[in-house]
Amino acid sequence: MTHHADTILTNAILLTMDANLTIYEPGAVAIRGDHILAAGFEADILQKYSAEQSVDCQGKVLMPGLINAHTHAAMTLLRGLADDLRLDVWLMGYMMPVERQFVSPDFVRLGTRLACAEMIRSGVTCFADMYYFEDDVADATAEAGLRAVCAQTVLKFPGPDARDYEEALDKTRIYIKKWLGHPLIMPAVGPHSPYTCTQEILQSAASIAREYDVPLLIHLAETRQEVENSRKEHGMPVIPYVKKQDVFKGKVLAAHCVHVDAGEIKTLLHHKVGVAHNPSSNLKLASGFAPVSNMLDAGLKVGIGTDGPASNNDLDMFEEIRLATFISKSTSGDPTSLPAPMALTMATRMGAEALQLGKITGSIEAGKRADLILVDNSRVHNSPRFRREPEAIYSQLVYATHTADVTDVMVNGKWLMRNHQLLTLNEEELISAASIYAQRIDAFLLEREHSVLSKLVAIGGASEEESYEVQVKVALSDPDCVEEGIKKHGIEVLHHRHYHEFDTYFSFTDTSQGYLRYREDEALGPNDQVSNVRYRLTLLGPTRENDFLSDALLSRSRFIAPASHSLRFYREYFKPAHETIIEKHRMRWRILYHAMEFFINLDRLEKPALGYFLEVKSRTWSRKDAEHKALVARELIRSLGISKEASLSQDYIEIVNTPGSK
Amino acid sequence: MTHHADTILTNAILLTMDANLTIYEPGAVAIRGDHILAAGFEADILQKYSAEQSVDCQGKVLMPGLINAHTHAAMTLLRGLADDLRLDVWLMGYMMPVERQFVSPDFVRLGTRLACAEMIRSGVTCFADMYYFEDDVADATAEAGLRAVCAQTVLKFPGPDARDYEEALDKTRIYIKKWLGHPLIMPAVGPHSPYTCTQEILQSAASIAREYDVPLLIHLAETRQEVENSRKEHGMPVIPYVKKQDVFKGKVLAAHCVHVDAGEIKTLLHHKVGVAHNPSSNLKLASGFAPVSNMLDAGLKVGIGTDGPASNNDLDMFEEIRLATFISKSTSGDPTSLPAPMALTMATRMGAEALQLGKITGSIEAGKRADLILVDNSRVHNSPRFRREPEAIYSQLVYATHTADVTDVMVNGKWLMRNHQLLTLNEEELISAASIYAQRIDAFLLEREHSVLSKLVAIGGASEEESYEVQVKVALSDPDCVEEGIKKHGIEVLHHRHYHEFDTYFSFTDTSQGYLRYREDEALGPNDQVSNVRYRLTLLGPTRENDFLSDALLSRSRFIAPASHSLRFYREYFKPAHETIIEKHRMRWRILYHAMEFFINLDRLEKPALGYFLEVKSRTWSRKDAEHKALVARELIRSLGISKEASLSQDYIEIVNTPGSK
Repeated sequence: MTHHADTILTNAILLTMDANLTIYEPGAVAIRGDHILAAGFEADILQKYSAEQSVDCQGKVLMPGLINAHTHAAMTLLRGLADDLRLDVWLMGYMMPVERQFVSPDFVRLGTRLACAEMIRSGVTCFADMYYFEDDVADATAEAGLRAVCAQTVLKFPGPDARDYEEALDKTRIYIKKWLGHPLIMPAVGPHSPYTCTQEILQSAASIAREYDVPLLIHLAETRQEVENSRKEHGMPVIPYVKKQDVFKGKVLAAHCVHVDAGEIKTLLHHKVGVAHNPSSNLKLASGFAPVSNMLDAGLKVGIGTDGPASNNDLDMFEEIRLATFISKSTSGDPTSLPAPMALTMATRMGAEALQLGKITGSIEAGKRADLILVDNSRVHNSPRFRREPEAIYSQLVYATHTADVTDVMVNGKWLMRNHQLLTLNEEELISAASIYAQRIDAFLLEREHSVLSKLVAIGGASEEESYEVQVKVALSDPDCVEEGIKKHGIEVLHHRHYHEFDTYFSFTDTSQGYLRYREDEALGPNDQVSNVRYRLTLLGPTRENDFLSDALLSRSRFIAPASHSLRFYREYFKPAHETIIEKHRMRWRILYHAMEFFINLDRLEKPALGYFLEVKSRTWSRKDAEHKALVARELIRSLGISKEASLSQDYIEIVNTPGSK
Repeated sequence: MTHHADTILTNAILLTMDANLTIYEPGAVAIRGDHILAAGFEADILQKYSAEQSVDCQGKVLMPGLINAHTHAAMTLLRGLADDLRLDVWLMGYMMPVERQFVSPDFVRLGTRLACAEMIRSGVTCFADMYYFEDDVADATAEAGLRAVCAQTVLKFPGPDARDYEEALDKTRIYIKKWLGHPLIMPAVGPHSPYTCTQEILQSAASIAREYDVPLLIHLAETRQEVENSRKEHGMPVIPYVKKQDVFKGKVLAAHCVHVDAGEIKTLLHHKVGVAHNPSSNLKLASGFAPVSNMLDAGLKVGIGTDGPASNNDLDMFEEIRLATFISKSTSGDPTSLPAPMALTMATRMGAEALQLGKITGSIEAGKRADLILVDNSRVHNSPRFRREPEAIYSQLVYATHTADVTDVMVNGKWLMRNHQLLTLNEEELISAASIYAQRIDAFLLEREHSVLSKLVAIGGASEEESYEVQVKVALSDPDCVEEGIKKHGIEVLHHRHYHEFDTYFSFTDTSQGYLRYREDEALGPNDQVSNVRYRLTLLGPTRENDFLSDALLSRSRFIAPASHSLRFYREYFKPAHETIIEKHRMRWRILYHAMEFFINLDRLEKPALGYFLEVKSRTWSRKDAEHKALVARELIRSLGISKEASLSQDYIEIVNTPGSK
């Protein structure tokens, strides 16, 4: 008596990619609904099962679909936008500004669909994604029929889908609840990286992941600089720092892990952290060579990812598998390192395990979901085929197979591609819609070629400071009360300095460009001797919050950079319409007040001679925190004994440039 | 009035790859016969030229064909035969034995045709080849319609097409004369590498290249080991050593150049040596990272090659171009290194220059041959297209284009592929013929699984000694005459040693396997104290030359390896049918006689007690030299005062195992 199946695939070179790397030739697979009933030799399967639909695989390779362990699918729409650039210029000069302007639910749906079309063609049946508007990513993916872990990004900067991280975290909870239990989509939380998140974000994201038992996706130890900065800022490298925030207490998939030592690998193993290795991205961005062999030897589950198409620039998993072996061999100096069967395991069964989906996909075994592909290994670039050793078939797939050799793809028991024809997506429509986005982005960037920020970025990068700077300022007739006040009231002084500051402000015909400030900062010692001079460029964006406390200044998008060139150079380079010089003495205190950090500046403006001003300032990544700090700053000013003076919500340059100001 | 053309290609994104990287969009190219009449904006070309045939490129990229700067085309038939192995095991355990057995004119014709089919699909219009039976490679290439520099291999080992290097050099001359002046084929000489050639071979090959003004192709500085060995043997690294042999006086294309320093790069530049960089091969074989940026900065012409398909394993030039930039970026730590336009230049115009064909191909310019391809850059993995900067189109081609995007290929004005259909080759026929070779090779290797050599290789490699060992041996009644003779006659003693040798010979049921000798070599000091012990394995092949002097022994295919395991280990591993123990004392002199190096062994056989023997031995790579040395050895024995004794043309093991021997 035979059992009933919906579909039987016959006449295949069946690579199960199970723990023993069992191969059946000729092999067959019986499928019912979304899952695999049985896999084995064709004769055995045909004896035990009968089905309405029988598919002749024509001697092709039948294997589990590939697992793309790390990508940002929607970034297909930014593919090839800017290449051969340093990471900071690429990210801050191109990706982030364009994302701020263009990324929307429509953008991510289209970008994700385009990515799904490309991934299906490349034999991918499951991928791990991190981006904005992840609800739309998940929706577009489910419609295309692919399996995915979709992580909503959280970071300390304002993102295209969240004004600040509190909003991002709130949205993440709603998003996860909506998708939990979906047959194709596993929702997840994606704190972008330790260096783009605060400790609070990392801890909150980890707590969300544990609360809903969903994966947490994060970029870890991608560049040497990241690790060095972590040592400087936190006194320890990236992995221990992240562990300290309890991130590893949940199910974690960590992308990159390029710069991790043996001890850190042990930590990752102890916490069962899955790793996504991204060969093309690491090579193209010159991030370094991940110690893949060491991680595998230690027992870590390491999958292979394409990373986002803006940094790769395609989603070709066959290329990534090949590169994974090449990197391992070339950096170890050992050509036997990471042999073909292991590389293909990383891209299938082990990749699924790294994504915490090992129980349902990654190999062709009874009970797992029917996620599988057919690969034609008989074309000219793959001929002839040697059969002496079982490794030879893996060697064909890893070293010579092209993405165009994938002919058929099934996910969850449903065909997504048959004989090179996509069944769930219309490529022509996607390509022309993408082309319209590209035209708009090109136009935006051409326009921006006149932008001060882009020019600032172009000459060596600039880093964005905390999102919000809160400032409460008053003009003073009696400056002495400040020093007295600081001494008397419950204020803890952390640091005190006297500066002589020479500021040159460039302004531009297009006032929306804001001001670019060149500051020469002389730190003065006890006898007013210059102990140190610092040169900095700061771009003061014109953006202002309208709905903020009326007497406080809340500024955003400040970019600062060390000024390594001369004032003359910047004058010639930026060609300002006007220049304004402001010279002042500044007594500066960094203090704690109600356990919050503030700067108190007592400024004497010498040129123009405008007298004394008191500023209380603080910076934060959180808008809520900014509002709170503005209130405390007002209170701090009152507590210094200053009460009748009116607050000024202006920068000095605005005070100076406003006709009729004092 | 318009000029007449045969074909005009219109409606293209025309990348000329000329010195200014001029792009015409929409562009057009007018072709007459084998060459380009003009390239420019479509409107200009259509105004100036008329043609019977007009081809609408449908907005695809029209660019010069890719130049594959280094390959061994016929090795397609060995693709995937053995991977993930150390170079010595791969080369000596698999490639060389299989090549000796199978490589024939039929093999190279089929392998070359298969490679041409794959290369046309990959957009290659011209390649540089080095292999055996190069006359047949050239013929198959010309039939397929591709352009190539075809170099006949010369090396010191016997090859499939030459018993020794003298024969190879003779064949090379005949081959070059036959092909000089062919419209597609540039014949060349290919001394394989410094470490597989003698000084005489290098000098002769260089002289042939100069005599016929053809290129000389050679592998240089591929591995660190090669450079270290060169220092040991020649007292200098590879490049100066090769220069000293006058190799660089001709037009040279050097493959690899992985381990070259700044001084060596200067030497290469001074001699206008073209370089072929082979990214996949260097990564897969863990050879190291070539200093490509340094070579380019210095002004060297560096092309990009796939290397042979047995070590890659495909002939996908788009993959190689991408890897060239990845290697440059990742090893320099600078993501701006080797940007896309430069990478594509290396694969086109500069590649042609490296092949010494820069005047006729490599860019789309009036007067050059019509070697060009169409690439569809509108498919899903290449969408969208950004047009803001001209670099973006190069970025598409380098970072996201697949070989399957090449739709049409023209060489020398003749279409070889139209809309993915090959016009000069029948792929189905080639694939099935290749499959028959693969079956035969599989059978040969399975058979050989019982081979002692393959097992020897499998446990850590063995190196083949000089091709020929000449030996003249006599049984002595009076051994004292030898020491006297050496003192008296015009013999210069270079080195003298006393050994106590314990040999265990393994023999096998299949006598064609030869003998495997495990030797424990005790070097004895002045008071017969053991000063050093050396353990070695030597495989004494059964091959014997029949047409040699009757009283001399000429043996071939000796493989030796340090014996790092115990005798017990080897006994269990090789499972010999018989073991024979021979113990002897050997007085050994390394001498010069008539300016030739010989070894004189005076042996006293203790077990079995066979008495005294005198051996005169020498090794050489040349058969002619071997014959000459055998005559001199006979004379040397006579000059030692030994004249009446009969020479024995047997090894000790044969003397011992021959029933009735003394």
